[in-house]
Amino acid sequence: MQDIDNVSATKSFGGWHKQYQHQSQALGCAMRFAIYLPPQAQTQPVPVLYWLSGLTCTDENFMQKAGAHRIAAELGIAIVAPDTSPRGDNVADNDGYDLGQGAGFYVNATEAPWDQHYRMYDYVVNELPKLIEAQFPVTQKRAIAGHSMGGHGALMIALRNPQQYCSVSAFSPIVNPSQVPWGQKAFSAYLGTNKNHWQQYDSCLLMAASSGSVQPPALVDQGEGDNFLPEQLQPEALVNAAQQSNYPLTLNRHRGYDHSYYFIASFIEQHLRFHAQYL
Amino acid sequence: MQDIDNVSATKSFGGWHKQYQHQSQALGCAMRFAIYLPPQAQTQPVPVLYWLSGLTCTDENFMQKAGAHRIAAELGIAIVAPDTSPRGDNVADNDGYDLGQGAGFYVNATEAPWDQHYRMYDYVVNELPKLIEAQFPVTQKRAIAGHSMGGHGALMIALRNPQQYCSVSAFSPIVNPSQVPWGQKAFSAYLGTNKNHWQQYDSCLLMAASSGSVQPPALVDQGEGDNFLPEQLQPEALVNAAQQSNYPLTLNRHRGYDHSYYFIASFIEQHLRFHAQYL
Repeated sequence: MQDIDNVSATKSFGGWHKQYQHQSQALGCAMRFAIYLPPQAQTQPVPVLYWLSGLTCTDENFMQKAGAHRIAAELGIAIVAPDTSPRGDNVADNDGYDLGQGAGFYVNATEAPWDQHYRMYDYVVNELPKLIEAQFPVTQKRAIAGHSMGGHGALMIALRNPQQYCSVSAFSPIVNPSQVPWGQKAFSAYLGTNKNHWQQYDSCLLMAASSGSVQPPALVDQGEGDNFLPEQLQPEALVNAAQQSNYPLTLNRHRGYDHSYYFIASFIEQHLRFHAQYL
Repeated sequence: MQDIDNVSATKSFGGWHKQYQHQSQALGCAMRFAIYLPPQAQTQPVPVLYWLSGLTCTDENFMQKAGAHRIAAELGIAIVAPDTSPRGDNVADNDGYDLGQGAGFYVNATEAPWDQHYRMYDYVVNELPKLIEAQFPVTQKRAIAGHSMGGHGALMIALRNPQQYCSVSAFSPIVNPSQVPWGQKAFSAYLGTNKNHWQQYDSCLLMAASSGSVQPPALVDQGEGDNFLPEQLQPEALVNAAQQSNYPLTLNRHRGYDHSYYFIASFIEQHLRFHAQYL
C-alpha cells in the first residue's frame, strides 16, 4: 500500500475534510489531494464522487467554494478532489495560465518536455481510485464531475471508462477541445500536432462514437453569462454528439450565470442528487 | 449621495453578488465592499445582515466560502461584507497579521500613526449603512454578525448601538479583547495603554452593563477543536457577562470544529434563520 501523509483535517457538516500528500507513481512527483468524508463514512463504506477542477485550481477551490459538503453529508457521498496537474520545481511549466502546472488537461502527454510528468489521465483513472479505495472507507461505486477543463476531464474519462463510473456531470465543460483555443493550445503541446492523437481526449468525438457501449448518464450545466461560452465551451456540440449515439445527456442552460464558483455553488446540489441516484 | 463604482457582478442562487469601491470619508481611503442581493430585492426592499470578517480577510472570504447565499436567497436577506481595515500604500501597516491592514479590530484609533485612517467603528456603524440604504433596495432593518475579530466587532457594535440592530451573532468571537493577547496587542497600538479607553470596545464589559437598555438577541457558536479557544476566545466570559445583565445570549459549542470557514459554513444556516426571526 502506498504511503500517504495527512496534511490537514477539518470537521465540516459532521464529516471531515482532509488533505493528503503522496508520491505519485503515474506523475513522478509529490501530489496533494483532498477528500471529504461524510458522517456516514464513520460507520460504513460510502461511494465516491471524483471532482476535477479547472485551470489554475488546486485541490482546494472546490472544497472551499462549492458548498458541496452539506449535500454530501446528507447523501452519504465522499468527494475526492485531486490537483489539476503535476507540481514542483522539477516539473515542466509555462508562463501561460492555460498550459503547464495547474493546466494538466487530464491527458497523458507524449511530447517533451511534458511527457516526463504530465500523465494526469493515468493518475485520475488508475492510481488515485486505487489509492482511495485502499486507504479510506469507500465502496467501488464511483461518479465523476468537474468544471471547465475539469468538466472536459470528467466527461472524457467517463466516456472512455464507462464501466468505472456510475454517472458523470460537468459545469461549463470544454466539450470539444480539438476545436477550441484552450484545447488546441494544450493538446498541441502535450500530444503534438498530429490531430489523430487528440481524438481519444475529445468528449464530443467519444460521445458520438459511444453507441453500443455502456453510457453513464451525463448532466451538464452551463451559464449563459459565461464569457468563455461562445469561443471555448460550445455545449451544443455535445448535444449534437449525444444525438448521434442516443446518449443519455441532459444539458441545462442558466440565464445570467458566469464561469465562477458562484455558478457551481448555485447548482451543485442538483449535481450531487443526480449522482446519488446511480451511486 | 456618495459615488460608488461597481467592480464585479456575479449571479448566485438567483440573486447577485456584487463588489463596489468607494472613497470612504470615515477612513480617508478607497474601500471595497461586497453585497449579496437576494432575488427578492428585484421587487421589494429587503433587510440587511452586515458581516464582519476576521483577521487577514477582505470582503471576499465570507462570500466565497460560507455558503450563505443559498439561505439568504431563500429568506430574502441582503448581506453586506466590508473589508477588515483601511487599505492602501498611504495607510499605516505592520508586519504582523494581527495589526494594521487586514486587522482594524472595528475601533476608532486614537494613537499615531493609526489615528489617520483606522476608524472602522465609524465606517461600519455610520458610513456604510447610510451608503447601503441610499444606494440599494434595502429596508432599515439591520442585523450584524461576524467571525473571530469580526465576531468581536459584531457583538461590540450591537451592544453599543442596540437600537440599530435587530439581532447579533458571532462565530468564534473575541469576546473579551482587553484580557487576551490579540486584543491587547491591537488595543495598545490603536487606543494606547490607558485601559479605560479599551472598555468601550470590550463585549464582555458592554454586555455585563447592558441591563435596562434594549438587548438585541445574540447567538454565538464556538468550535471546541479551535486552536484559539483557550487563549484568545474564552466564550465562557461572555456567558458570565450575560448572566450579570440577564442578556438573551445563546452559546452553542460544537465538538471537533476548528476556527475555519468550514465551521462557519456548517452552521451559517442556523445563524441566518436566527436573524430572520427578528428582521
